[in-house]
Amino acid sequence: MRNPHSNGNLPGKTTEENGFGDGVILGLDGGATSTVCVCVPFYPFGDRLPEPLPILGRAVAGCTNCNSVGETTARDSLEQVISEALVGSGSDKSDVRGVCLGVSGVNHPSDQEKIENWIRDMFPSHVKVYVQNDAIVALASGTMGKLHGCVLIAGTGCIAYGFDEAGKEARASGGGPILGDWGSGYGISAQALTAVIRAHDGRGPPTMLTSTILKALGLSSPDELIGWTYADPSWARIAALVPQVVACAEAGDEISDKILVDAAEDLALSVKAVVQRLGLCGKDGKASFPVVMVGGVLNANRKWDIGKEVSNRISQYFPGAQTIIPKVEPAVGAALLAMNFLTSYQENHQVT
Amino acid sequence: MRNPHSNGNLPGKTTEENGFGDGVILGLDGGATSTVCVCVPFYPFGDRLPEPLPILGRAVAGCTNCNSVGETTARDSLEQVISEALVGSGSDKSDVRGVCLGVSGVNHPSDQEKIENWIRDMFPSHVKVYVQNDAIVALASGTMGKLHGCVLIAGTGCIAYGFDEAGKEARASGGGPILGDWGSGYGISAQALTAVIRAHDGRGPPTMLTSTILKALGLSSPDELIGWTYADPSWARIAALVPQVVACAEAGDEISDKILVDAAEDLALSVKAVVQRLGLCGKDGKASFPVVMVGGVLNANRKWDIGKEVSNRISQYFPGAQTIIPKVEPAVGAALLAMNFLTSYQENHQVT
Repeated sequence: MRNPHSNGNLPGKTTEENGFGDGVILGLDGGATSTVCVCVPFYPFGDRLPEPLPILGRAVAGCTNCNSVGETTARDSLEQVISEALVGSGSDKSDVRGVCLGVSGVNHPSDQEKIENWIRDMFPSHVKVYVQNDAIVALASGTMGKLHGCVLIAGTGCIAYGFDEAGKEARASGGGPILGDWGSGYGISAQALTAVIRAHDGRGPPTMLTSTILKALGLSSPDELIGWTYADPSWARIAALVPQVVACAEAGDEISDKILVDAAEDLALSVKAVVQRLGLCGKDGKASFPVVMVGGVLNANRKWDIGKEVSNRISQYFPGAQTIIPKVEPAVGAALLAMNFLTSYQENHQVT
Repeated sequence: MRNPHSNGNLPGKTTEENGFGDGVILGLDGGATSTVCVCVPFYPFGDRLPEPLPILGRAVAGCTNCNSVGETTARDSLEQVISEALVGSGSDKSDVRGVCLGVSGVNHPSDQEKIENWIRDMFPSHVKVYVQNDAIVALASGTMGKLHGCVLIAGTGCIAYGFDEAGKEARASGGGPILGDWGSGYGISAQALTAVIRAHDGRGPPTMLTSTILKALGLSSPDELIGWTYADPSWARIAALVPQVVACAEAGDEISDKILVDAAEDLALSVKAVVQRLGLCGKDGKASFPVVMVGGVLNANRKWDIGKEVSNRISQYFPGAQTIIPKVEPAVGAALLAMNFLTSYQENHQVT
């Protein structure tokens, strides 16, 4: 997607046509292991956006979560990924109108402010900078930037997050393992490990999960699972067992099937809670609204399809719910969100 | 309980009568926050033991878990607590016949060997040294040193552990939070925190736990619970909320009641699994055997009595089960266990 032309224009297009006349937008996705930056042309958000959105430049760098890698590394990686995406697009910092970064775990306002300030320092003062929760960016990636509807993320963790037309927000789940996110990849895997231990010590029925999980982990007895879980309590390591649970359920293991059904039920319940609190389904319960579904648990595309199971349950609750699997990556969602914010800002400043 | 007499004899008794003729035994309980050492007279285990067992000396020192406090501190504390108990009893190292230390989390044989070697180095070579899992020591504290029956521990964590007459062992639960120890103090509290979050985000019904737990933690909104759990994931800190759950159940809160009923069911099921695997209940299911119940969750002595609830369920499964709350502390259980091991050792060595 890189544009090698030195004038920064897309091949065969004038500056006006490819949007450079209105400048560019940077969208960033700060994940747990890497950071993606895309550079797209700025379009006023109210206009019909071209599909697919042209990606002028794209770059990938390491993790930019300062809690994980330290401030210096995080800041350097941010600087690098932004610079590479701009070079790739053939534009430079003076073309940038707005930047939006989506990050997980921005729970402390001070963290958010720190990262916002780093990015602000990299650009001229008129550039608008937004740092947002990754759930909001994920919603935007499914709604082409519009903050309306509900997003359900189920990867290592899970969360449901939504906005009504007036901008009111609500969330459900997303508290982590201690607070019972049973629909998450971690939750599904922890239930599976528990089922193996219960079968082993006589509290529960035998399950195919025993041989499947022990084989996947290279262990010879369920007793060794205790040491395995204590050795490294990282949630992602536990959550990586979801494919084994799905494989067992597909092979007819009843325990695995029940774990996945319960997870789907819990995920659908999170969406239901958000939709009801925001009244997204309207007074008659039939209004149309988007439900964006994101993450490895929902989009694994297996025969036993957790996403489909969740989606069916949501449709039973709300016949007007439109489930959407985003066609663009989260970094593009961040760019779309920046266009939305920037357009609102301009409109407000024209009105006043 | 200290004996200030310089000759080390109990007041008014001869050396022969108070057991000094046969030497003394040290029993140690290495807990998470402190280490207790008791010094008792040695009695051959087959004989009828006096009740209460005379405690010649008792001392308390800091934690001796080398994973928590480091090797030097752990070893120094062990040395100190042993020395103080001996001084208190008026005896010295040459009087010691055997030492038994009960420690939690001795899952790695190398850890166990290390501590055993430290203690061996403190005594002449003929002194027998035993390092045992705290569950085994807890069983001994309820059976006057006999390793037969089942022990159920429910404090921060939980475990069921048992021995049949032939010395065969079995355990259930005890895998920690990830592996679903729902009857533990941690498990009960985590379920309560989850109920608060579910009530708050609309997934679950309202519960008295919300105001009770927020007040106990000095928080103003359930949203703050997420930060609270992330701030320090220590299990004991979470488990400390059990009294709040019991208070809500006593006040009629249905959610709290269900959490406690489920916990009692899970704890009874752990005992059932161990009893069935070892055949402690005999072929007709009615044989008599002890079930020793230990830990703050079981022995809190509240109106909503979790221990009683567990005990009732066990009696329904096994009419011959005799539930016992130990009258002596774990350190005394360790001393009784040492007498048992030492007597067996002597008998075996007389036979051969």
